[in-house]
Parts: sequence; C-alpha cells; structure tokens
Amino acid sequence: MRETYHRKLAALLGILAQMAAEAGAAMRQATYALTDADLWAAEETISRYDHVSSLAREAEEQAFNLLVLQAPVAGELRTVVSALQIVSDLDRMAVLATHIATAARRRHPNPVVPHELVGHFRQMGDIAVHLADATRDVLETCDPGRARQLDADDDAMDELYGSLFAVLMNPGWPHGVQAAVDITLLSRYYERFADHAVAIGARVVFLATGDLVSEADFHAS
Amino acid sequence: MRETYHRKLAALLGILAQMAAEAGAAMRQATYALTDADLWAAEETISRYDHVSSLAREAEEQAFNLLVLQAPVAGELRTVVSALQIVSDLDRMAVLATHIATAARRRHPNPVVPHELVGHFRQMGDIAVHLADATRDVLETCDPGRARQLDADDDAMDELYGSLFAVLMNPGWPHGVQAAVDITLLSRYYERFADHAVAIGARVVFLATGDLVSEADFHAS
Repeated sequence: MRETYHRKLAALLGILAQMAAEAGAAMRQATYALTDADLWAAEETISRYDHVSSLAREAEEQAFNLLVLQAPVAGELRTVVSALQIVSDLDRMAVLATHIATAARRRHPNPVVPHELVGHFRQMGDIAVHLADATRDVLETCDPGRARQLDADDDAMDELYGSLFAVLMNPGWPHGVQAAVDITLLSRYYERFADHAVAIGARVVFLATGDLVSEADFHAS
Repeated sequence: MRETYHRKLAALLGILAQMAAEAGAAMRQATYALTDADLWAAEETISRYDHVSSLAREAEEQAFNLLVLQAPVAGELRTVVSALQIVSDLDRMAVLATHIATAARRRHPNPVVPHELVGHFRQMGDIAVHLADATRDVLETCDPGRARQLDADDDAMDELYGSLFAVLMNPGWPHGVQAAVDITLLSRYYERFADHAVAIGARVVFLATGDLVSEADFHAS
C-alpha cells in the first residue's frame, strides 16, 4: 500500500521534472527567437506551451487523487502540497518564455534587442536555461542542498538585470523609448523566470526537510 | 466532527479574506505614495507587508493541519488545496504593492509619474483596489458567479495598461527613457496585481463547483 503510494508520488514529481525540462527548452528557444529574430522559433515556443499546460493539469489531478484516495502521512502530505504549489511556478515559467517569444514575433523582422545588447540577453537566457535544468534535477532528486543552491545561482541573473538598467538609464542611450520599454519588460520576464526557479527550490527544501522558507524570503529579490 | 471541520475551513477562508483586504489597503496606500510623492505612505506600505507575510504563514499552517489531522472529503479537500494556492496569489499581490511603494521612495522627493499621467495611475490604483475588495468578498462568500465576474472587472485594467503603452510609444514622448522605464514597470505591477485577483477568482470557482479553470485561461491575458 505504502509502496504504491510512494510510486505514485515519484510519478507526480516526474511530471514536475518534465514541466521544468519543458520550461527550460521553451526558454532556450524563446531566447534564440529574440536574439536572432527567428520567427519560426518564436512560433514554436508559443505553440509548445499547450503541452506544459496539459502536464500542469495532469499533475494537479494526480496530486488531488493522492490526497482524496489515500490518507497521506505528514511527510507525504508535504510532498503533495508542495507539488501543487510548484505546478503554478512551473506553469508561470513557461508562460514567461511565451511572453519573450511573443515580443520577438511582434517586432519581426526587426530585432527587438539592439545589437550591442544581444550578448547580454544571450547570457540571461543561458542562466535561465541553467536554472530550469537545475530545477529539473532538484525535482528528480529532492536534494535540499541542491535546492538551496538555486538561490545562489539566481544572483548572476539579478546582476545582469541590474546592469541592464544602468545601460538604459545612461543619458547617451541611442535607441529611443520603444526599445527601452521592450527591454525593460523582456529583462523582467527573465528575472521573474529565475525567481520562480528559486521559489521551487524553497518548496523542495520544505518537502524534503519540513523547513518552511517564507514567501517573503524567496520573493524578496 | 464535520461541523468543527467546517468551522476550521471557514476560519481559513477568513484569513485569506483578511489577506485580500490587506493587499487592497496596501495598494491604495502605494498608489497614493506614487501619485502624491508621499514618502510616509511609501514607508508604511513597505512595512505593513510583514503582516501579510505572517498571515500567509498562518494560513499555510492551518491548511496543512486540516489535511494532516482530519481526512477531508472531496469538496472540503478542494477548498483546502485551493486555499493553499490562493495564499501564493495574495502574497504576490501584497509584494507588488510594495514594489510600487519602493519606486515612489526611490525617486522621492521627485515624482515618478509625469503630471499628465497621474490621473491614469490613480485609475489603475482604483481598479486594483476594487479588484482586491471584490476578491475579499469572493473569499468570504465563495460565490462562483461573483468569482467569475473578476475576470470581466480586469478588462478595464488591461485597457488602461494597453493605452499607457500607446502614450509611451508616441514619438513626441517628452519625459525621456528613465520615466518610460519606471512607468513600464509600474504599470506591469498593476496589471499583474489584477491578474492575481482573476486567478483567485478561478480558484474559487473550482472550490465552489469543482470546475477547473485552466492556468492557461487565466494567465492568457
């Protein structure tokens, strides 16, 4: 009985890991659409979201069934409850990737990002993809040490986000207001994507150890 | 036994309603800080967040205890699971209000919003406060009809958000890039605040009726 339950819990976490992998793949493709003004990549990113959405639905149903069909003990319950919260974060990560792709599509064939900032966005994309991959690992292993590491990994994103504003605020910014507005929103999407990965890290610490990391702590950045 | 359980569920929803009221009050104060460059209001908004955060912790603990101490039946389970998800949305709404207050504090004593857009932001603030108040009502009554209405109420916010971009993109925009960047982020905070209210509406529809409104539907806007 307990063994079946644990198999089902593992299957649920497996769906979450799959969602994280999908979010990472979407982010890689969205960044390519953005930096290389590639319309096909933009369309692909947007259309693959449906798959993430159906994985989210499946995870929620499985979690619900685990709660309603079998009375979980405390540790198992933490896992199911955390899984339900993690689904929202993963779904949001995938949505943010589609926002980036939509921006690339909107301005196509013009580039959204001025030439000298393309490298900056590639770096943000690399960090975001790395965080999604690390999130997938964390969901597969439920290793609290690795989960805590996500917060440190996010520092590089925060730094890039901050330095971008310094560029925009420079009085010599030559690309006008529209480009500044686009870049402000785009960099916000990357930064929020990373925040959600950190939030998932905090949830996994909770499910693995019972230590509650407060919303305030992981939303503070 | 069942009666005690239902009293505890009602108490849990009561905490959520209180969080919604707090988020609305924070948004009202943050908007005042922004439109009237009021430093005291900005500081107050930021410091009152701690209270929301402790309410969130309390709600999560109560929800967890309801799951672990008593085996809920399906309808009750839906309520507890939805409550856990709603906590995250409400917490985020309060965080977004602090972001607005922080922007007002950062530029003080200078105004963040150019004079001719102050009315625009007052309107966004009014809609946000209205949505928070409506969310509180929905959490108190669990009325699915009123919960669905939140989505329609959000249309006015989407319209204001869109029209702001038209103003920013006007080639004659006289306030420079810094103001444009500030306004882009600020308007995004208002728009996301409203989105979370809509998401809570979808959760309440689910807890009241069992109809799942997909993440995609309420994140689409």
